[in-house]
Amino acid sequence: MTVLILTCEQDVTADLAVVELNANGIPVLRLDPAELPGGVDVSGEYVHGAFAGHLSVGGRVVSMQGLRSIWVRRPGTPAARSADASAWLSEESAQALYGMLRCTGARWMNHPDAARQARHKPWQLWLARESGLPVPATLITTFPRVAREFAARYPDLVVKPVSGSHPGDDGLAVPTTRVRPDEDFGAVEHGPTLLQRRIRKAADIRLTVVGERMFAARAAAGPDADDDAVVDVRFRPSGVTWKPVPVPPRVAEGAATYLSRAQLAYGAFDFAEDADGIWWFLECNQSGQFGFIEIETGQPIGSAVAQWLAGEPLIPTNSATEPTRP
Amino acid sequence: MTVLILTCEQDVTADLAVVELNANGIPVLRLDPAELPGGVDVSGEYVHGAFAGHLSVGGRVVSMQGLRSIWVRRPGTPAARSADASAWLSEESAQALYGMLRCTGARWMNHPDAARQARHKPWQLWLARESGLPVPATLITTFPRVAREFAARYPDLVVKPVSGSHPGDDGLAVPTTRVRPDEDFGAVEHGPTLLQRRIRKAADIRLTVVGERMFAARAAAGPDADDDAVVDVRFRPSGVTWKPVPVPPRVAEGAATYLSRAQLAYGAFDFAEDADGIWWFLECNQSGQFGFIEIETGQPIGSAVAQWLAGEPLIPTNSATEPTRP
Repeated sequence: MTVLILTCEQDVTADLAVVELNANGIPVLRLDPAELPGGVDVSGEYVHGAFAGHLSVGGRVVSMQGLRSIWVRRPGTPAARSADASAWLSEESAQALYGMLRCTGARWMNHPDAARQARHKPWQLWLARESGLPVPATLITTFPRVAREFAARYPDLVVKPVSGSHPGDDGLAVPTTRVRPDEDFGAVEHGPTLLQRRIRKAADIRLTVVGERMFAARAAAGPDADDDAVVDVRFRPSGVTWKPVPVPPRVAEGAATYLSRAQLAYGAFDFAEDADGIWWFLECNQSGQFGFIEIETGQPIGSAVAQWLAGEPLIPTNSATEPTRP
Repeated sequence: MTVLILTCEQDVTADLAVVELNANGIPVLRLDPAELPGGVDVSGEYVHGAFAGHLSVGGRVVSMQGLRSIWVRRPGTPAARSADASAWLSEESAQALYGMLRCTGARWMNHPDAARQARHKPWQLWLARESGLPVPATLITTFPRVAREFAARYPDLVVKPVSGSHPGDDGLAVPTTRVRPDEDFGAVEHGPTLLQRRIRKAADIRLTVVGERMFAARAAAGPDADDDAVVDVRFRPSGVTWKPVPVPPRVAEGAATYLSRAQLAYGAFDFAEDADGIWWFLECNQSGQFGFIEIETGQPIGSAVAQWLAGEPLIPTNSATEPTRP
């Protein structure tokens, strides 16, 4: 059975997993939905009460019922690279491709519905707390008065985007930034604002979870970390060194609960470690990069992804049962 | 406890349900996400392990924990009517509003994730068949050769959009149309094409399901229906008359299974009734209009929606349990 990887051509991180799958003789089909139609073809037939779907890239044809897993890595917008690209063609192509893939019994990393839900930062904070992970006091509001009252209770605050967009995502990136003590919060009424009690960081923690395997890495904060206006490790100029660390059992339990309830097979958690060694949940990115962590720490994350993808499908694909969706 | 209705100002269909909720003393909060921020405000606080959210419209403040149900009718794009409208503000506002609403115990009609999944036509066809509803032989393909072979087996075909977009949806509407016998299908390679065996219609059937209540309406086909190039009832010029009809038990069972597996509280099924009285599944629109059916048949669909919305939330909202999501 074949592993399907949906990603763009330039995705070197996907290469890490592909090499391992190839080495183990697991068939892989890699395609970019942006190439449909033209470079990629799809076909599905609903006849006599059965569905039979096929994918084709470069002359190779693979049965959708023969997919063991689907890795949604960095797929392009369907039809974006077609000669006749349009919003309508993208919609038609997306429906054809993802609509048919939803009819298979393949395991998803991650299922599109779970992925979409998981991007909601307000829901992340709620679920993290429900899962037993410590969450810094947080306010999301369009009321200046409420923001002022929150700031009176928690004077040392950071502000960050509600949508938690990451650098490179459509250019909508805004770093986490400290709030000035004299802030009057009048502008809060112009857009929902996320304020969070600042954790005085001893370190940044990245916990990458692949199925049931966890890889934690720690980057110690510099001596002047407290003075920085920008407290976002993603925007630090350089000099950040990630080292592997063990995962405290309570964090491991919380992260496993979080991913199980979110129905995610993959998640990259960001924590702030405080002076007492407590890991405070900041966010969980369901499509977080792992290449830079793997390179710095030597943790075999790509290999773990490959092994998860190589696993058997969760349900027999030739029986008339539901797909594995959240 | 309050019913939240997310819809635009001009939505007269929503008025049908609001009138009934008001008459029964059920508090209703109606808002258009397009008015956030400005006309609508949101606030949510994550402190001491609890989440407390609030919505405000026109000076009225409602607790999110006090929501019994959420009706996603015809909501505008968040922030679209804000003075500072932008893609970024829409994303931030959507995340703030829907992200927080996902943290409540309210029942959804329909949950955004279920709604999104339900829009996939290829998945609809698969699920309908799985649910025991008859589905006409269908092909979705970008291979001209496969289309030709299918047409040889089923010479009497219609073509329709894969994405099943409806008139008025972003202007991306294309009616279902008969395929000419001399069609060569070469253009199929330019975009996924949905071909379906044409059902020789005795009537169009609209089955509207609200929770566990079903309302079927039938529009008999005209005597010259077989000669029409456009076989799409939505595009017929006029003269269509809908009459209430009972739901055959096997169809009722199939529709209930479909909605249960799709985790939808509301669905509008379109069937084609053939000369033998068989109802062939064409599609299920999770946000299908019901006003025109109610007006023609007198079926109390708006009232059924109101009663469903007035029901108790599925889980206690003050306990630390998961929201009711698919």
